[in-house]
Amino acid sequence: MSAPTAAETSAAAPRRGRPGYDRAQILEISVELFNEQGYDATSVSDLAARLGLTKSALYHHFDSKEQLLAEALDDALGALEGVLEEPAATTGSPAERLDAVLRSAVRVLSDRLPTVTLLLRVRGNSPSERAALDRRRAFDQRVTALVREAQDAGLVRDDIDGAVTTRLVFGMINSLVEWYRPTGQIDRDRLAHDIVTIALDGMRTR
Amino acid sequence: MSAPTAAETSAAAPRRGRPGYDRAQILEISVELFNEQGYDATSVSDLAARLGLTKSALYHHFDSKEQLLAEALDDALGALEGVLEEPAATTGSPAERLDAVLRSAVRVLSDRLPTVTLLLRVRGNSPSERAALDRRRAFDQRVTALVREAQDAGLVRDDIDGAVTTRLVFGMINSLVEWYRPTGQIDRDRLAHDIVTIALDGMRTR
Repeated sequence: MSAPTAAETSAAAPRRGRPGYDRAQILEISVELFNEQGYDATSVSDLAARLGLTKSALYHHFDSKEQLLAEALDDALGALEGVLEEPAATTGSPAERLDAVLRSAVRVLSDRLPTVTLLLRVRGNSPSERAALDRRRAFDQRVTALVREAQDAGLVRDDIDGAVTTRLVFGMINSLVEWYRPTGQIDRDRLAHDIVTIALDGMRTR
Repeated sequence: MSAPTAAETSAAAPRRGRPGYDRAQILEISVELFNEQGYDATSVSDLAARLGLTKSALYHHFDSKEQLLAEALDDALGALEGVLEEPAATTGSPAERLDAVLRSAVRVLSDRLPTVTLLLRVRGNSPSERAALDRRRAFDQRVTALVREAQDAGLVRDDIDGAVTTRLVFGMINSLVEWYRPTGQIDRDRLAHDIVTIALDGMRTR
């Protein structure tokens, strides 16, 4: 699914009217509402009201609120996992692969801000959320393994634990969901460059 | 107020019983509950139940739920603002001051995880929350001004905008609330060292 900005969907939603939503649009608008008021605090009635649909029309597309959540989380996680399968992430030195993984992760976040935002707020209150946390943990472990490989090759400092380094760098990347807006002044590739530069080389001049 | 871990307060709360809470303890336990289930989703009845107090006993100490929120946010913001007033943050080269500010900010976060966690989740749904967002923004601007001073002095790279650099580095610092636990393996000073090292010099060896 493509990731609309909040401004795009809230401007478009009232005009679109009742009929003609496809599954992807229902998912998009639902994710927007989950991010606005929290998944737990959002009822199926709230979703139906935002969409201008009856609950039964909504249930025609999705079995439950949790199914919407599960598909949204899968959108974010599938894209993040895909980063680790890209050719640039699987060939070259560990430092080159790490550079590629960080750069692509920034692109995934900026392209899929709504579903990644939802993912990063998951606390494990339902089976779908716990499954998502497990997949996030597995992703982190694969990145940590790559950081450790780069440490063993002498390409990444080994005076800081690889898992801590991974958490800090992804802390920086994940902070995008708090402040980055794709419609703003910084484009996605510039942002990826800035983040990878700070993560690899730091802010200090030499 | 001192910042209890989740384990400490949940173990201690039932044993403490009804009487004898002071204001600071009520605030601590309220912040813990706000962080668990969200401020908006937490009622005064929920707070009274967690504390084992009647609502009127709770109102003896605090006028409203929003007063609890305002005092908790002030705890976090006051400590962060204090970082910028410390001698190490106001004397020396811009690079030395920046180093000191980042290091002290990490210490504030690790010492006050509960109230800073609450602060970082604020979305601006009430006057107290909007006032807190304004103070956070003013803090960010003062740090950005320091980053720009360090850029002008040639000590921090100027190929990345100073405001973006500040956001990225604080994204890394703020991520602590998601994964750092003071009872874990990494102590606070080690953590401050690791974060400042990555922020200033990056993960790559030279």
